[in-house]
Amino acid sequence: MNIFYAPPSQIHHNFAELTGQEATHASKVLRVREGDRLVVVDGQGGRYEGPVERISETSLQVRLEERQQVSAPAPELILGMGIIKKRDRLEFAVEKAVELGARHIALFRSEHTIKKNVRTDRLESIALSAMKQSLRSWLPEISVFLSVEEVIERFSDVPCLMAHEKVSSDTGGGNEAASVADKEDRLLLLVGPEGGFSPTEAERAQEEGARLVSLGAYRLRAETAVVAFMSRFL
Amino acid sequence: MNIFYAPPSQIHHNFAELTGQEATHASKVLRVREGDRLVVVDGQGGRYEGPVERISETSLQVRLEERQQVSAPAPELILGMGIIKKRDRLEFAVEKAVELGARHIALFRSEHTIKKNVRTDRLESIALSAMKQSLRSWLPEISVFLSVEEVIERFSDVPCLMAHEKVSSDTGGGNEAASVADKEDRLLLLVGPEGGFSPTEAERAQEEGARLVSLGAYRLRAETAVVAFMSRFL
Repeated sequence: MNIFYAPPSQIHHNFAELTGQEATHASKVLRVREGDRLVVVDGQGGRYEGPVERISETSLQVRLEERQQVSAPAPELILGMGIIKKRDRLEFAVEKAVELGARHIALFRSEHTIKKNVRTDRLESIALSAMKQSLRSWLPEISVFLSVEEVIERFSDVPCLMAHEKVSSDTGGGNEAASVADKEDRLLLLVGPEGGFSPTEAERAQEEGARLVSLGAYRLRAETAVVAFMSRFL
Repeated sequence: MNIFYAPPSQIHHNFAELTGQEATHASKVLRVREGDRLVVVDGQGGRYEGPVERISETSLQVRLEERQQVSAPAPELILGMGIIKKRDRLEFAVEKAVELGARHIALFRSEHTIKKNVRTDRLESIALSAMKQSLRSWLPEISVFLSVEEVIERFSDVPCLMAHEKVSSDTGGGNEAASVADKEDRLLLLVGPEGGFSPTEAERAQEEGARLVSLGAYRLRAETAVVAFMSRFL
């Protein structure tokens, strides 16, 4: 099954309009024809289905015969992730976070961040593909912060778990994480870049109420930590 | 910290010999000099430390002053993984499986496998890097099988969990997986390629005693399923 995306502004009373790459992909690559039935999601939980009514050079109109509001995954996971230096690993982490149901991806620079700039347009396009691939209806927002403290401040009303390799695994971070998740309907998960969080960052996060959790006894690459952490809430 | 690898055959009574890429990496890239202390692992749990005694064009000898036998991660995880078509995704899955502690990686062709051949030499080199990166001392064996049934047969004495998207998530696959892990000291985890397992494959696996588990309500890419599944046993 192929899912197409149109932002809420392109969902009208009785039709949805696919434009840009979505339209090109549908008409040129998948050779969709008038009358074919498509599924369209708006990235905000709206899920629509209906036949293609009109195909032009630059857009494609789908009549909306069925509509459904898909509830957001619970708990609502906000991933705060240090910017990873290697582009393919950063992109991989974003793709996996979307597949695993992140609602918001907050990239941040940190004391151990080497790479300072990210192309959010590329990451947004990856997030879009991953949403469609995993048949989800919610598209996470991607934003960039100047520090992990800024992320914590922005989501100060959300209980926060910080992955930290210095925590003894005796504290059973994983189980603890899962038991926290049972109780909360929103969670902020923080994962550092290569090299992890600095002692100062970890201390300040704890002062702000974050709980440190271990992801096991061995060193994990940053993008592996993202996937391992998020997987606990599947 | 940098870790170097020498197979058991190159661990002698009182010295270890690094050769090939390991020697080149140490002497040319990291500019290791005589007298520098190195950590060497043999991929079988042996972990050694001592000073470099001699550096030649093609090899590097390390005197073994400290030796330690690191026990293998428990439970012992054998990952049976369908061959993924896209090379970067296959390599990523192997890298992550090693980071997350796989003891054996059994790649198999399946009904939904598109790519038929894999370069195990490349995968072995990725596994080696990942072992060193994650500071582990065990190097998983990588082998290729003609079908998932062959994998099940090869590990017929090991309790088997098969990730399958058709299982209702009501059965709580994740928790079930974790509770099984508490009891077993070896586990075979099966993940299909793109498109998952065919109904026949799933049926036969169940006949052989495999339990189907769900990794959640959404479709995951094959390599994401590998990481999500293995993360449950961290």
